[in-house]
Amino acid sequence: MSLTAPLHGVVPPVCTPLDDRGEVDTASLTRLVDHLVDGGVHGLFALGSTSEVAYLTDARRATALRTVVAAAAGRVPVLAGVIDTTTARVSEHARTAAELGADALVATAPFYTRTHPKETAGHFRRLRAAVDLPLFAYDIPVAVHSKLSVSLVRELAEDGTLAGLKDSSGDEGGLRRLIVELGGREGRARGPVPHFSVLTGSELTVDAALLAGADGVVPGIGNVDPAGYVRLYEAARAGDWALAAREQERLVELFAMVDAGPEQDMGRSSSALGSFKAALRLLGVIENGATAFPQLPLSAESVSLVAARLRGAGLPPVR
Amino acid sequence: MSLTAPLHGVVPPVCTPLDDRGEVDTASLTRLVDHLVDGGVHGLFALGSTSEVAYLTDARRATALRTVVAAAAGRVPVLAGVIDTTTARVSEHARTAAELGADALVATAPFYTRTHPKETAGHFRRLRAAVDLPLFAYDIPVAVHSKLSVSLVRELAEDGTLAGLKDSSGDEGGLRRLIVELGGREGRARGPVPHFSVLTGSELTVDAALLAGADGVVPGIGNVDPAGYVRLYEAARAGDWALAAREQERLVELFAMVDAGPEQDMGRSSSALGSFKAALRLLGVIENGATAFPQLPLSAESVSLVAARLRGAGLPPVR
Amino acid sequence: MSLTAPLHGVVPPVCTPLDDRGEVDTASLTRLVDHLVDGGVHGLFALGSTSEVAYLTDARRATALRTVVAAAAGRVPVLAGVIDTTTARVSEHARTAAELGADALVATAPFYTRTHPKETAGHFRRLRAAVDLPLFAYDIPVAVHSKLSVSLVRELAEDGTLAGLKDSSGDEGGLRRLIVELGGREGRARGPVPHFSVLTGSELTVDAALLAGADGVVPGIGNVDPAGYVRLYEAARAGDWALAAREQERLVELFAMVDAGPEQDMGRSSSALGSFKAALRLLGVIENGATAFPQLPLSAESVSLVAARLRGAGLPPVR
Amino acid sequence: MSLTAPLHGVVPPVCTPLDDRGEVDTASLTRLVDHLVDGGVHGLFALGSTSEVAYLTDARRATALRTVVAAAAGRVPVLAGVIDTTTARVSEHARTAAELGADALVATAPFYTRTHPKETAGHFRRLRAAVDLPLFAYDIPVAVHSKLSVSLVRELAEDGTLAGLKDSSGDEGGLRRLIVELGGREGRARGPVPHFSVLTGSELTVDAALLAGADGVVPGIGNVDPAGYVRLYEAARAGDWALAAREQERLVELFAMVDAGPEQDMGRSSSALGSFKAALRLLGVIENGATAFPQLPLSAESVSLVAARLRGAGLPPVR
Repeated sequence: MSLTAPLHGVVPPVCTPLDDRGEVDTASLTRLVDHLVDGGVHGLFALGSTSEVAYLTDARRATALRTVVAAAAGRVPVLAGVIDTTTARVSEHARTAAELGADALVATAPFYTRTHPKETAGHFRRLRAAVDLPLFAYDIPVAVHSKLSVSLVRELAEDGTLAGLKDSSGDEGGLRRLIVELGGREGRARGPVPHFSVLTGSELTVDAALLAGADGVVPGIGNVDPAGYVRLYEAARAGDWALAAREQERLVELFAMVDAGPEQDMGRSSSALGSFKAALRLLGVIENGATAFPQLPLSAESVSLVAARLRGAGLPPVR
Repeated sequence: MSLTAPLHGVVPPVCTPLDDRGEVDTASLTRLVDHLVDGGVHGLFALGSTSEVAYLTDARRATALRTVVAAAAGRVPVLAGVIDTTTARVSEHARTAAELGADALVATAPFYTRTHPKETAGHFRRLRAAVDLPLFAYDIPVAVHSKLSVSLVRELAEDGTLAGLKDSSGDEGGLRRLIVELGGREGRARGPVPHFSVLTGSELTVDAALLAGADGVVPGIGNVDPAGYVRLYEAARAGDWALAAREQERLVELFAMVDAGPEQDMGRSSSALGSFKAALRLLGVIENGATAFPQLPLSAESVSLVAARLRGAGLPPVR
Repeated sequence: MSLTAPLHGVVPPVCTPLDDRGEVDTASLTRLVDHLVDGGVHGLFALGSTSEVAYLTDARRATALRTVVAAAAGRVPVLAGVIDTTTARVSEHARTAAELGADALVATAPFYTRTHPKETAGHFRRLRAAVDLPLFAYDIPVAVHSKLSVSLVRELAEDGTLAGLKDSSGDEGGLRRLIVELGGREGRARGPVPHFSVLTGSELTVDAALLAGADGVVPGIGNVDPAGYVRLYEAARAGDWALAAREQERLVELFAMVDAGPEQDMGRSSSALGSFKAALRLLGVIENGATAFPQLPLSAESVSLVAARLRGAGLPPVR
Repeated sequence: MSLTAPLHGVVPPVCTPLDDRGEVDTASLTRLVDHLVDGGVHGLFALGSTSEVAYLTDARRATALRTVVAAAAGRVPVLAGVIDTTTARVSEHARTAAELGADALVATAPFYTRTHPKETAGHFRRLRAAVDLPLFAYDIPVAVHSKLSVSLVRELAEDGTLAGLKDSSGDEGGLRRLIVELGGREGRARGPVPHFSVLTGSELTVDAALLAGADGVVPGIGNVDPAGYVRLYEAARAGDWALAAREQERLVELFAMVDAGPEQDMGRSSSALGSFKAALRLLGVIENGATAFPQLPLSAESVSLVAARLRGAGLPPVR
């Protein structure tokens, strides 16, 4: 389905269930997509960081995206991450994603290399020219180790390169400055780029981002509780900020599952991804909680803590 | 005045006006305190980063704090920054601040040194024991290059070491997790540390922090427009989040004055502090816009941009 | 050719000449390999950072490696970089490199992801098991944003996972500690891993690394002046440290060509790679000095500075 | 004693022995100075990072410096660290150091603040003008979180601001570039600033730094084994690089004592400083191995490891 209006709402970065051999478990992934669409989400972001895209071979990436597109079946738009080091490599992923039916592309700044902002601007412009799909910039310094500045994003929004921003930088002040420059929470439609979509990846402060004027959210833990984020989004749309904040607080408590794997024993992202997948397994959505190699698995004790968090948030495990 | 209840509201970090020789301009500082108190602020934070505390000799620090305490005259509480590398040096500043009449102390983690969180915990505990005043932790990684974790702050809140937190880390997700652990926005009074005060230094997202349950804000640009932040705070207290957000947007536009000094030619903090002081001079509050050496001064062109931002925010310069 | 003894000597990271369309210029690359082998180098490192591997599609990587292997024609061993985000993706590159005739593999820690050292250890172990070629760890924090610790490298050396280390971390103290733990400059052969090869990527302090006991060097600017590094290496082998240092100083002066592109206008790595390629073009080795998109090209003025550095080092341009 | 020639040789950063109450143990400090001078060192650096300067109140700093100057008794020059956040505060320390008899000053770039290189240049120039003593720049990014560039140091060397550089940046390539720009290892006396002194703080690669043309070294572990570093320095002066490297290797093994306190339980600098002081106590030089609060003390097990390292290096404990 085409993106005829600015993308908005809850757009979870879809986890990629794996089997024991590390292959994409397409049956589980199909169930996960149904779980999300049934939860009321407004779009799906396949092949993002939470999808473990950096761990997937090109073949597995293709399988995952194909499965998400098929399962979504046009009910919601599918954004595809095209994550690789630099422009030529990203362009190849972009062409593949287009062929597989993605509705939009999500690309980061170059990484591994040290890249000047002027070079990063060229990167996004060439990607936009290479494949005719709406292009979202993915600002994720924790992964790529550079930050997209407000002025760079604005420049690329105004010249039509970018359809939107997925901001996982954690720089809420910078995001606020961008939104104000684009016309402010109430003036965006009359601003310089009325169709530009601002999505936050800061899943613990979504009420805040929506109050600031963001269009939507890409919450990793939205895999586990999509309906919760949809309630939060609807409350915000209705102007019931107290309700939005209460829902956000419940989700913050749920999110504490990521502390399950102590940092001294495994990577920080392994524990987050592992807990999301453990939760999806406990909820009966996916078959196997395994994360991609070389990420270490959660201990049994950690999985118990995930189960406790699920119960605490009103999402009792079914196994 | 003693802090009988959790500190809340707008607590600006008071700029330190200087004369041509770099000495504290006490007449200007007195006028600035009146400007802030007349603007309705709920407290004053002297000798913080925005006060250029790192540039002030001990004698100048004492002059500044003495002046703020005298000018405040008990109308609002005065918090004093006690900024130095490690415990013994900070303790000396704390004793001086107590003698000069500060109502509470604000201390960072050790800096210059590389300090383990367990050592940082000892640091705050000894400071609390050394001087009998409420102690606020000042979380400012951009200056001290370490971050206070949620678990450390919570531990020091629960054992009575800390009366509050001044969070300038920019980690809004972490702050949200802390508030939720303390009982949430509506449950703080029934939580484990009902008197603990959470103040944000993220001046561009104050509406968001208040929605999340923060008690107040320490806004650098609150020196320039204290009444604006008070209106924002009052709107939030009244639950009028749309009004709060509108006021915040106006303040975000005003804040763009910090872009006046381009980063390639001067330090980022120099341009922020220089623009705040330039604005205060243009508004007739202080006599001289000079920042402390070795910070470079704003150019005349930059001062013009500050003036434009003031006019844009409805604060016309008087000179 | 197989690596029957620990790799040693000068092993330049081979630049990848490109044509105007960004395709690998195989004729130029063949000439470059001859230039290096004629200069006396002891091995070739294809598809490293200096080869712009992060900018090359898989097809271009294969073309480059195939060309280097063919041009080397067994005269010196060819190491192949297998640079990608995580284990499964790196393994695919490793299999391809083996098929194309590489004599050894060079892999970094995972990047884009946040990976625990225990996970990084698993990464290298699985790569070693996947493809039966000697495996070198490539320690390059500026690109991957994690550092391989001395203890991790030693563990992977002792269990046979690693055949060697290519250290581009700049942490000369850490490298010295590793060498001392392995038996010291004179005792390596009687140490715990007598065949482990230590190569430094710190091209400005090669005399120092060889004095410390390193086996060899992987110098980017060795593309431009391979014979200079060979003279330096031979002087060090002969114990003529004053001569080694003089040669190093000449190469330091030559290296100043990387300052050609000022940091404010292009990326730091773009200016280094651009100046190496400009020098190779000026010396008549390659046809085109272009770097891969989105790197900005050197200005004509910068190319003039490169030419001046060449003349200063006794390497007069031929065009 | 005045510095009539460029400072050279072994200039240890003198540890500051403390008693149980955290006060300077002047008797122990006097013995330590004798230990160092008897070991043949060429100068003493009081109030550096290894002296725990960041932990000492102004009164304790004065006691320490006064004691070192008195104990040195003109036998070797005494450099004094003047470590504080910015220019005005550093100037006060500089005046005190001059009054207490320091022969030269050692100052860092500003810290806590974010300072532009142009502002840092002004900082050093004003310090030089404020107190008429030779001024050394102390490049220590791990503490101050900015790096002095080669071009900045060169500019301040050429205009007479700086008498030398104490480089604790770990950037050996940058240091090499500086030395080459100053004329190279053999041409310094005919270079642009013949009297400029280059001292490295990289205590594990001193042979390398001397080979590169550095004038001397400021080794923390030189407190423990000053004679070892003097032997290393003399071997290098005599051109016996193999002997220098062997001595360096012995000192690298001795240095492994800093691993005594595992990083997960205490700060990295605490374990280094704690092990140096434990070694000095075991050798009978100082009375008490305590480090300044809030650094955690070494465990008894860790002290045993320090003792083992001493024995391994031929420095048997006397208690």
